[in-house]
Amino acid sequence: MSYNTFGHMFRVTTWGESHGVAIGGIVDGCPPGIKFTTGELQEWLDKRKPGQSRFTTQRREADEVQVLSGVLSKEGSDEILITTGTPISLKIDNTDQRSKDYSNIKDRYRPGHADFAYDVKYGIRDYRGGGRSSARETAVRVAAGGIARRVVEGLFIRGALVQIGDKKINRDHWDWDEISNNPFFCPDKEMALEWETYLDHIRKKGSSIGAVIEIVADGVPAGLGAPIYAKLDQDIASHLMSINAVKGVEIGNGFEAATLSGEENADEMRAGNDGNPMFLSNNAGGILGGISTGQSVVARFAVKPTSSIHTLRKSVDAQGREVDVQTKGRHDPCVGIRAVPIGEAMVACAIADHYLMHRGQTGRI
Amino acid sequence: MSYNTFGHMFRVTTWGESHGVAIGGIVDGCPPGIKFTTGELQEWLDKRKPGQSRFTTQRREADEVQVLSGVLSKEGSDEILITTGTPISLKIDNTDQRSKDYSNIKDRYRPGHADFAYDVKYGIRDYRGGGRSSARETAVRVAAGGIARRVVEGLFIRGALVQIGDKKINRDHWDWDEISNNPFFCPDKEMALEWETYLDHIRKKGSSIGAVIEIVADGVPAGLGAPIYAKLDQDIASHLMSINAVKGVEIGNGFEAATLSGEENADEMRAGNDGNPMFLSNNAGGILGGISTGQSVVARFAVKPTSSIHTLRKSVDAQGREVDVQTKGRHDPCVGIRAVPIGEAMVACAIADHYLMHRGQTGRI
Amino acid sequence: MSYNTFGHMFRVTTWGESHGVAIGGIVDGCPPGIKFTTGELQEWLDKRKPGQSRFTTQRREADEVQVLSGVLSKEGSDEILITTGTPISLKIDNTDQRSKDYSNIKDRYRPGHADFAYDVKYGIRDYRGGGRSSARETAVRVAAGGIARRVVEGLFIRGALVQIGDKKINRDHWDWDEISNNPFFCPDKEMALEWETYLDHIRKKGSSIGAVIEIVADGVPAGLGAPIYAKLDQDIASHLMSINAVKGVEIGNGFEAATLSGEENADEMRAGNDGNPMFLSNNAGGILGGISTGQSVVARFAVKPTSSIHTLRKSVDAQGREVDVQTKGRHDPCVGIRAVPIGEAMVACAIADHYLMHRGQTGRI
Amino acid sequence: MSYNTFGHMFRVTTWGESHGVAIGGIVDGCPPGIKFTTGELQEWLDKRKPGQSRFTTQRREADEVQVLSGVLSKEGSDEILITTGTPISLKIDNTDQRSKDYSNIKDRYRPGHADFAYDVKYGIRDYRGGGRSSARETAVRVAAGGIARRVVEGLFIRGALVQIGDKKINRDHWDWDEISNNPFFCPDKEMALEWETYLDHIRKKGSSIGAVIEIVADGVPAGLGAPIYAKLDQDIASHLMSINAVKGVEIGNGFEAATLSGEENADEMRAGNDGNPMFLSNNAGGILGGISTGQSVVARFAVKPTSSIHTLRKSVDAQGREVDVQTKGRHDPCVGIRAVPIGEAMVACAIADHYLMHRGQTGRI
Repeated sequence: MSYNTFGHMFRVTTWGESHGVAIGGIVDGCPPGIKFTTGELQEWLDKRKPGQSRFTTQRREADEVQVLSGVLSKEGSDEILITTGTPISLKIDNTDQRSKDYSNIKDRYRPGHADFAYDVKYGIRDYRGGGRSSARETAVRVAAGGIARRVVEGLFIRGALVQIGDKKINRDHWDWDEISNNPFFCPDKEMALEWETYLDHIRKKGSSIGAVIEIVADGVPAGLGAPIYAKLDQDIASHLMSINAVKGVEIGNGFEAATLSGEENADEMRAGNDGNPMFLSNNAGGILGGISTGQSVVARFAVKPTSSIHTLRKSVDAQGREVDVQTKGRHDPCVGIRAVPIGEAMVACAIADHYLMHRGQTGRI
Repeated sequence: MSYNTFGHMFRVTTWGESHGVAIGGIVDGCPPGIKFTTGELQEWLDKRKPGQSRFTTQRREADEVQVLSGVLSKEGSDEILITTGTPISLKIDNTDQRSKDYSNIKDRYRPGHADFAYDVKYGIRDYRGGGRSSARETAVRVAAGGIARRVVEGLFIRGALVQIGDKKINRDHWDWDEISNNPFFCPDKEMALEWETYLDHIRKKGSSIGAVIEIVADGVPAGLGAPIYAKLDQDIASHLMSINAVKGVEIGNGFEAATLSGEENADEMRAGNDGNPMFLSNNAGGILGGISTGQSVVARFAVKPTSSIHTLRKSVDAQGREVDVQTKGRHDPCVGIRAVPIGEAMVACAIADHYLMHRGQTGRI
Repeated sequence: MSYNTFGHMFRVTTWGESHGVAIGGIVDGCPPGIKFTTGELQEWLDKRKPGQSRFTTQRREADEVQVLSGVLSKEGSDEILITTGTPISLKIDNTDQRSKDYSNIKDRYRPGHADFAYDVKYGIRDYRGGGRSSARETAVRVAAGGIARRVVEGLFIRGALVQIGDKKINRDHWDWDEISNNPFFCPDKEMALEWETYLDHIRKKGSSIGAVIEIVADGVPAGLGAPIYAKLDQDIASHLMSINAVKGVEIGNGFEAATLSGEENADEMRAGNDGNPMFLSNNAGGILGGISTGQSVVARFAVKPTSSIHTLRKSVDAQGREVDVQTKGRHDPCVGIRAVPIGEAMVACAIADHYLMHRGQTGRI
Repeated sequence: MSYNTFGHMFRVTTWGESHGVAIGGIVDGCPPGIKFTTGELQEWLDKRKPGQSRFTTQRREADEVQVLSGVLSKEGSDEILITTGTPISLKIDNTDQRSKDYSNIKDRYRPGHADFAYDVKYGIRDYRGGGRSSARETAVRVAAGGIARRVVEGLFIRGALVQIGDKKINRDHWDWDEISNNPFFCPDKEMALEWETYLDHIRKKGSSIGAVIEIVADGVPAGLGAPIYAKLDQDIASHLMSINAVKGVEIGNGFEAATLSGEENADEMRAGNDGNPMFLSNNAGGILGGISTGQSVVARFAVKPTSSIHTLRKSVDAQGREVDVQTKGRHDPCVGIRAVPIGEAMVACAIADHYLMHRGQTGRI
């Protein structure tokens, strides 16, 4: 029973609203002796930070993370922190709230937003910037993910934007090095240029567009997960679906698997040089029967277009009157962009979690 | 930490292997005073039961469910059971195991199956019929789902097969009444005929094919779910992804949302006759910000083709030797068919669970 | 959120009522490769079994445990079972129900029993033999505890009855070998004789009496537990308090610690031969700051007298009318006796659970 | 799986070490619409605050609590906060750390402390002020308990110190009004005077002494709890045992129940004026079969003497060398005193938690 917690053993509980004084979270269950620096958490956070390009919201937040507990400084080095096994408290102050921007929608239900559902559920709502439903909360996940990445030795997680609107990248062009050369985390140099023009167009007319993100985790030991109900893919799906605006998740070849025959889909094996099987393909996305195989774990998720747009939209207000709603607050023309580091963080947390669960139950790591 | 449990308050824990003496489970947290009959559980189970047509595995199981605890008979009626609020134990005997069919794959890793990952994880494996990884376990979910359907008054859940291979139904032809007129749970009469020919072809050559299933839940009260980490869509995704062979899940318009603009995607509202907003479309699939809106909850999931096929496939054995593997056991040419009642059951459990969670936290039901 | 489950990683979920067809449970999270026999579970169960002497209830139950899943037989030995890492389903049939004995108390609230509280909570109640509130459920715990004992190599758990009424054993007489020489699990030969006379007296007048049980666990590795909220002593207390009729729990010198000074209470240490500290006393009961020290873990719990007695007692019925209640069903003059193996089982489960948790988080075992 | 969380639905997760920058916690699952003021949380905290009299540690902490999320100010009143149903983040800064006091015990295992067990478990330890094992963490519980008290309408929880050393209060002298007239939360005016002299003696010689605390909760609705594993008394025992230095817990007449007969122990009932049964005694402590009866819930717990004393004690250091240890840091001669408001808070949290669980499962509140 955990409204604001995810994970079984590597557990992250977050708190905070878009326009409160701060947001934060607790990482509980982290093994002792894990080394990391605040600087590296900051680097991950900076990837998600708003206002990095004209294609993301212009809200300016330093997103400076503080580590308030659960660590000691390494002797002789203030920079390197070592986890002690106790809960790690993370805090990020909010600095650029503009709550007045939202006063006009205090009683109006923005289409595509949680406003109405929220009011029905709680009967009270912090409407400023979306309150708890704001994507601002995801900063904490990114910081927690930074620690999770350190839990499993050799784990290496990368993400890429693979589709904006109906414009998909060409997988033959995939080059991980391109990711940092454009503001989209796009691995296809040519498509990045096309997206630039396309998103400028979207942005200028105050509209928005959806996207698909792909996360690839290398260095995942075989054996993580469980046959049922604690499947690694199940938890990755749950973690990714918990990100704001996500409407679909798939593992390996995902929905395409529906179109394939058993011969086409099942990954064949040959003897590998290290004694382990070598898979001849990776349709499974590195997970079979809920358990990692040692191949790259591959997950994709679809993000809907931001519902905060400049066009007038039909709606009702809290009193049931018909109104037209226009969102004036700053927003992302394509929230999918900033979803890349968030997706990476969530996959990192899922893998760290299952690593500990596997070690606990089987002692085989 | 729950390897074999799903749900927060309406919790289902299952046990059993494909070729053990029985399978079963415990439904814990069910409210007292819920009425149901063993007969109605049996009706749901019969929808999932193998051997119903030539398009599913020929394993013959009565799948007779026994209710061992947690209920009293209604006075004057042996048939109607009333829950007492204590754990409900369900048991289904295995009767048609043919474990010998599997002796040839005891040490061979079937491509597309959990065999290798399983061995790495546990170091020991019940290879007969897939052991714990067999879809046989899903019978228990269907029985549990039958109880879940009774927890929320007015809840009505239906599922349909909407795609086999690349053959998708025509949504303009959708007729729920057709579902029971063909062996595929297909709502499109014409496509059902096409599938029949197509699947006969697949079946005869000992191959298999993937599918997509859609579940629609009507009568879901608004307010179920939470903004983060206990989102209704997140738990539906997790529940569906826990079903064997599922590789993708989506809510509402799902991956298609990636291709839409904010104007196209966000569902507008007008004042409804009952004082509640009336949505003009349902791209969201009945869930906004993780919370149900009162619209139909719509989820889809992709099932990969059975990896048990008659064609020889390249693989390795437990000793790392290269071998060719052919699956001789009975199997489903399209497991997606029997996944329909399973998906319905998992969505029913998720909704019952969130209904109780919502009532507990807010007292607003 | 777990109404009928205990444990974090070694999780036990039970089901069943006193007068249903059976009781049972699921052990989830057990490591793979653990060896045990049904025979040894039966031996533990036989210690708890009713009808073993004239000092326990005369209900006759074979208490034959069946293991329905989660194990394979060891090759060449049908007797030795090996866990596979999947859920272990345990079932014990009820055979000697005499539900008619209880018809007279169907609507009457027995003083000291859960009847009234139960009706307020659920609005429906299986009154036969106490339903879910019956100590019959504890048989499942004993079977689960039998498996837990095998999880931690070298773990050795014993229990003793140390007090009946105000008659306490003489600790200078403590002899573990005496435990099996009397029907009370009494380690003090002389006191066992005194209890025999005393309990005969209690039994003949249809009365009952309370008791105190002590559990000692040897071979508990140092390092199990956590500083806060997952303390080993906290979970032992929780597990023991979950046993029917338990009203108090203590660790080490327990309530006596309130009377001591810091000098008297804190256990001093000297260098041990094995490099580890050697404690000069064990007031702490083997747990400091919630974490095991490697000393014997010592817990005690108080069991109230059975409320089922032959004397007429003042009460009310479900309609609020004043009535006198007399319990005619078979019952235990001192339930504390049969609580010994139950307490052992619960401590075993707590230790196995924390062993896995510790291994998972720290990898230090 | 929750190392630093307690509760099922009303969940409290805490973080922080004795000598870190701050301590804090998250209250998750709190119902929306609950009103409270920071001022009232502060009042509870002030009861626990160190340095209030010469009988508690002289560490000076303002213990000022900040509420960082999960609330809105009531319109027209900045003081009154209203919960929104989202996680409530609490933070209390540490201001009076004197870490140098502890440098001499950095590598020395203080007898009676968690030092050795902690090192075995984690291999790394924040030795300053006890780190995570410090009672400082309990301030967060008290703040959380302040919110919990508001969740159940009519709930009224009080605590008293009933024993210091072997000096027990006279229950015939019990006067709740005396609690605030002495520095011990003692309900017996005469005993308070005796304790004053006695504790001065203990304090001056740098020693310490144990104590027993009693918590009484009035206004607990009947029906909270469950027959097994989620018993109200089980969770109260677990919550209380999680407090630092607690070695025993009992409900109602507790260990004394072991000495009673069924006739003496079972609380008889007569028809009450309100249609509900009126109990003629309360040996059960308001809980039968794990479920509240509507009577006062009564729990007691024993606190061991502080192990931080001025006398030299035999021990070993981290290198296994024999050393003598003397604790120089500030400490409490009787930690039992400050345990009173902590115990109240933990019982409040347990009851709020079970209130929500009961409402969720049964809808009967």
